Amino acid sequence: MADNGGLKYIGTRPVRPDGVDKVTGRAEFGADWAMPGMVSGKVVRSPHAHARIRSIDTSEAEALPGVLAVITAADFPDRSGFRPARRAFNENLMASGKVLFHGHPVAAVAAVSGRIAEQAADLVEVDYEVLEPVTDILEAMQPEAPVLHEDMFTEGLEETPTAPSNVSKKAVISKGDALARFADADVVVERTFVTPMVHQGYIEPHACVGSYGEDGTATVWCCTQGHFSVRELTGMVLGMDPGDIRVIPSEIGGGFGGKTTVYLEPLAVKLSEKCGRPVKMVMSREEVFRATGPASGTVNTVKIGCRTDGRIVAMYAKLIYESGAYSGSPLGAGSMCIFAPYDVDDILIEGYEVVVNRPRVAAYRAPGAPQSMFAGESVIDELAMRIGMDPIDFRMKNAVAEGTRAAYGPVFGAIGLRECLAAAKRHPSYARPLGEDESRGVAVGFWFNGGNQSSAEVHVTDRGTVQVVEGNPDIGGSRAAMALMAAETLGVPYDRIRVRVADTESTGYCAATGGSRTTFATGMAVIQACENVIAELKTRAAATWDLGTDQVEWADGQARPVEGVNLDVEPLSLKDLARSAARTGGPISGRASLTAQGPGPSFSVNMADIHLDRETGRATVVGFTAIQDAGKAVHPDYVEGQMQGGAAQGIGWALNEEYIYDEAGVLDNPGFLDYRVPVASDLPMIETEIVEVPNASHPYGVRGVGETPIVAPLAAVGNAVSRALGVRMTELPLSPPRVLEAIDRRTSKSASAGAGT
Amino acid sequence: MADNGGLKYIGTRPVRPDGVDKVTGRAEFGADWAMPGMVSGKVVRSPHAHARIRSIDTSEAEALPGVLAVITAADFPDRSGFRPARRAFNENLMASGKVLFHGHPVAAVAAVSGRIAEQAADLVEVDYEVLEPVTDILEAMQPEAPVLHEDMFTEGLEETPTAPSNVSKKAVISKGDALARFADADVVVERTFVTPMVHQGYIEPHACVGSYGEDGTATVWCCTQGHFSVRELTGMVLGMDPGDIRVIPSEIGGGFGGKTTVYLEPLAVKLSEKCGRPVKMVMSREEVFRATGPASGTVNTVKIGCRTDGRIVAMYAKLIYESGAYSGSPLGAGSMCIFAPYDVDDILIEGYEVVVNRPRVAAYRAPGAPQSMFAGESVIDELAMRIGMDPIDFRMKNAVAEGTRAAYGPVFGAIGLRECLAAAKRHPSYARPLGEDESRGVAVGFWFNGGNQSSAEVHVTDRGTVQVVEGNPDIGGSRAAMALMAAETLGVPYDRIRVRVADTESTGYCAATGGSRTTFATGMAVIQACENVIAELKTRAAATWDLGTDQVEWADGQARPVEGVNLDVEPLSLKDLARSAARTGGPISGRASLTAQGPGPSFSVNMADIHLDRETGRATVVGFTAIQDAGKAVHPDYVEGQMQGGAAQGIGWALNEEYIYDEAGVLDNPGFLDYRVPVASDLPMIETEIVEVPNASHPYGVRGVGETPIVAPLAAVGNAVSRALGVRMTELPLSPPRVLEAIDRRTSKSASAGAGT
Repeated sequence: MADNGGLKYIGTRPVRPDGVDKVTGRAEFGADWAMPGMVSGKVVRSPHAHARIRSIDTSEAEALPGVLAVITAADFPDRSGFRPARRAFNENLMASGKVLFHGHPVAAVAAVSGRIAEQAADLVEVDYEVLEPVTDILEAMQPEAPVLHEDMFTEGLEETPTAPSNVSKKAVISKGDALARFADADVVVERTFVTPMVHQGYIEPHACVGSYGEDGTATVWCCTQGHFSVRELTGMVLGMDPGDIRVIPSEIGGGFGGKTTVYLEPLAVKLSEKCGRPVKMVMSREEVFRATGPASGTVNTVKIGCRTDGRIVAMYAKLIYESGAYSGSPLGAGSMCIFAPYDVDDILIEGYEVVVNRPRVAAYRAPGAPQSMFAGESVIDELAMRIGMDPIDFRMKNAVAEGTRAAYGPVFGAIGLRECLAAAKRHPSYARPLGEDESRGVAVGFWFNGGNQSSAEVHVTDRGTVQVVEGNPDIGGSRAAMALMAAETLGVPYDRIRVRVADTESTGYCAATGGSRTTFATGMAVIQACENVIAELKTRAAATWDLGTDQVEWADGQARPVEGVNLDVEPLSLKDLARSAARTGGPISGRASLTAQGPGPSFSVNMADIHLDRETGRATVVGFTAIQDAGKAVHPDYVEGQMQGGAAQGIGWALNEEYIYDEAGVLDNPGFLDYRVPVASDLPMIETEIVEVPNASHPYGVRGVGETPIVAPLAAVGNAVSRALGVRMTELPLSPPRVLEAIDRRTSKSASAGAGT
Repeated sequence: MADNGGLKYIGTRPVRPDGVDKVTGRAEFGADWAMPGMVSGKVVRSPHAHARIRSIDTSEAEALPGVLAVITAADFPDRSGFRPARRAFNENLMASGKVLFHGHPVAAVAAVSGRIAEQAADLVEVDYEVLEPVTDILEAMQPEAPVLHEDMFTEGLEETPTAPSNVSKKAVISKGDALARFADADVVVERTFVTPMVHQGYIEPHACVGSYGEDGTATVWCCTQGHFSVRELTGMVLGMDPGDIRVIPSEIGGGFGGKTTVYLEPLAVKLSEKCGRPVKMVMSREEVFRATGPASGTVNTVKIGCRTDGRIVAMYAKLIYESGAYSGSPLGAGSMCIFAPYDVDDILIEGYEVVVNRPRVAAYRAPGAPQSMFAGESVIDELAMRIGMDPIDFRMKNAVAEGTRAAYGPVFGAIGLRECLAAAKRHPSYARPLGEDESRGVAVGFWFNGGNQSSAEVHVTDRGTVQVVEGNPDIGGSRAAMALMAAETLGVPYDRIRVRVADTESTGYCAATGGSRTTFATGMAVIQACENVIAELKTRAAATWDLGTDQVEWADGQARPVEGVNLDVEPLSLKDLARSAARTGGPISGRASLTAQGPGPSFSVNMADIHLDRETGRATVVGFTAIQDAGKAVHPDYVEGQMQGGAAQGIGWALNEEYIYDEAGVLDNPGFLDYRVPVASDLPMIETEIVEVPNASHPYGVRGVGETPIVAPLAAVGNAVSRALGVRMTELPLSPPRVLEAIDRRTSKSASAGAGT
């Protein structure tokens, strides 16, 4: 890669366009917006995890001086005729009939100050009939469990269900006849794994300003991963045409999937409609934990059989995904990913989604995959141990490659799993001798990556600055990536490129920033818009020289006559042509829109070295190496940053993070003191190695990189701990008490075994 | 026009998109922006009209608690090497060396509150050497007058000037040999007219927020007619690349040309750079009057000779335009317009621009034309009286038409002067019998109209809403005009169109909203962008039907197979095609950029009926009819509104408005109490008649309409008053004291004449 494949800008590491603003405090985040006459909104939340709302009395709140509006579900469109998904979405934002989790919104108030809004929220009187909650998915599946939705019947069963159930759906992926093939295996391992509900842990709480006008149009400012999605979802909740809602995205202080949906925006707009003033709403950290969408807890059973030569013959999984109060879990993606790395003919995956009295889950980075692959990669590790094979070799022997049909359907194009495994095998980290009480775990991660719709416009100023306009909030350096791809395509220096994330009414449609689609799909739109500009530049140069457009070529950021045209002229740069644009036909711009095809799936291999303190049960990650196929790393720093960030989050999920509920269904740890995410001192330097197997569908070979990094760490850490303990650890987090318990169990077992001999 | 020429939307009168927001207070104007950490800026202004700055001591101001930054000219780029125009621009914003008008900025401060900023402004110590001011243009032209710029020598003279002068330039337009041809005239009238310096009188004072980042880029929010101009001019003043400045336009509470430039924006950015905080600056009304750009006062001599049959044989004008403290008057436009209505072979126009110790003038609606045409149309009126000819007939006899070459150069295309004159002649207002002490004046107005660069993007949402994005602040209903042209072109209902005026980094380049260019030029860009969308819609429909693109046509907002294609399908509307866009290739958008060619000049005829109170000298306009060629009135309400607004402003200019300076060069009437603009009770219902002679250069025949309405009222009112008095009134405003003086003069003259007989 010394010559960087002939690329001049892509693959370099310049400062990101938004970097200085973000480190100096000038960048504006969700809570930084102000409008004249703006007032404060506050959500009234259920103090019960499960209850029937008998009545709501807002009169006392409304009577408080300074209160401008109080809304309840009665202010929203009647939901009785809604299809279930829409009804669920609306109910989650503002309960009617029943509350289904502690923190569930039942009303909201707007007042001239935040303090008065809080006082008014306390004055909203809700008469509840408290019901028994169920917060555990296995309990919720029992026939005698309290039922959350009397009208919800399990979808996807062979037989028509006769009674309502908390199991919202069953989904199956099947290829060959796995259950029959286990008979051919020399070794079969079957285990059940449990992962907790965890939160994305973004630093910035949800915040927005909503302003509704007498003309029936609304403006929303908010922090989001997708302002076009906010437009759509807010319109859906309020029964408005999304075209009547303008959404302006702020900078975003972390989202990781949790900001692809809406919680406050429709409430702020409705409050604004009612009080005629812009309404700002900002969540507290506690509200974020209690009432936004965490990742599903899961109970996943995996059974894999292999031969002693290492060939896997059958794979089976039963996945149970917690969805929170309403259907909407990432069960599907979890099912798609679990066995995707393995070229096995006989695979069966049965999935169940279960509702419980907890907040409705939302996307969290590679949604669904870390949980299922923790189970899958743990069993793979155990099998490798059982047949005495190196865990990388074992995976290599079964690894998918270009041309393999994945169990979930598609035939893989060029993919980098084998390259990543090979890189892991030869990586110095893998050869590092382990110290005392140290052990090493290996795991593979996978994410299929997204495509979807994107648009971009590119404008050239008369000084030759290039303005790229697109509609994807920058959550991980996408402005830098867009600028690099524009610089490369146009042949213009990176520092002449400006990237603007424009509001929903100022740029073409872009699906949300998520699914690792942005650099791939919106990048393609930017590249095509730049090619559009180049066509225009060639036209202008041709007109200047009195040549035909096909007699001019664009190379190295300059127009010049093609070979064979006998014309002695100096080449014209973009800057030259920009300066004369007014005389040659007006401003120079280009644009493109597309539904991106062919996102390249991304594989990773992670290696975790842990040190186990057998006294306290504390597992410390002392070495971590993330290897991942990026297709082409447009800005390697930010690819590495994604890999490191995903590793940090995955390590937290593996070792410490969990939602802890009490018996009444109340979250016990709604804050960063008790919900423990890893901090810098908890982590080693996370080493990275970018593998580049180009994605043939993208002009520069790009494939998404943002999701995959969080998939493998759970199993990599889990495998390391299991190997250290000599006990297969099946429940996360691997926190000191749980590890200690395993040590104690093992000690007492060997003690009793010893006593028995 | 009963069938509206086959047009469905253009020519209708729907509610404007920004209307509700503007009347309900939701629209955000210049002072409505807020940013976190924002502080207040205040300008320190000269208390002298003419003085040398010996030194500035900012230490006391800087020491005041709460003060964050103080700037003077020393903080700006060194101007010594600047070309004169740029130096003048910079000096006008922040004086160095000399102050040249009362209110001239000498420093600016930023502080944590507006109150502290004001206190700090008072603490800036400037040591002035006070110089004698000159505020009268005729005095300023005298060799012994105080000289403003020691290095300014008159441009455009035949001989090289040897001494600096307040006459900044001389400019001549000549055709034939006017001076020789006066000998052929039967009647010659020569008079000198005086018009005062007047202000545009926009309701909203200048306001902005400037924010400078550590990365060297700036963001500016402001009320402006052209945010791309603000970008350019702010960059010029600060020595920044305009591409590093993002300008976001607010709504605008009136501009009329006065908001095509900058006063505060570069100061706010510089203060922000120095204090590291966003800085808001808002002018007081007094600051607006004292230190923004009013319209030139003028002294214009006009000599016209005609034959008794009404044929004009020669026209001469000597125009003297006040430019304020620095060169930059609209002398050129005034010279172009004065005789443009008349098809005369021999014309000579000599123009002089003079600097005085008053604020530098700026554009004011048809800049320069009302003043010169007041003079020209007054003499035309007097000639018509002298030869006993109807003033409309007299003008008709000499009127330019398609094919006439104007004295200022171009050959007219299709123009509507004769049509306007004919409409005036047959208008009921012209036949209305005059009451006692009533009289009627007629005048013609002209503006050549602008073209220039424009861009537009058009995006279709998946629900079929159409978003038009362009870069021209809406000063007179241009959003409605764009929406109507988009609706017409696409065949989509008006209420499905949204128009967004986007910031400088979110849309293609548009020259400022001014020169009556926007509906014409940006309208053409919108139409072309819509045609771009139609091409895409046809492609999608063709793909849906498996036809070639040339086998699909777009008509009435629907794609259908062209005649001859034997395919039985339902037509597909924009909404249908939008819904399926994700599957047929992604979001549907279009764009266009252009340098608009062929703006159609616009003529008007105004008739003013006045009632003269001979006791008080008060002239009251009791009837006013404005007739104007709009080419095609896209939204007739807003065309009529422009005609009525221009008439109101012209009537104010004619009857009441004037800058009154004391001997020290201090403006005596810097507020709306003493600077008297007409209010509703001063005016009759202004009747309008739109004439439509299509402009062949525009798809819908549009020509600019915004400037022309202010041109004729000065002379129409003046001619009415002169006819009432039997005395040719040559100096504006025709305020009661001046009219009374004329009555007294006339009475005493006829009394003495009577005494003599």
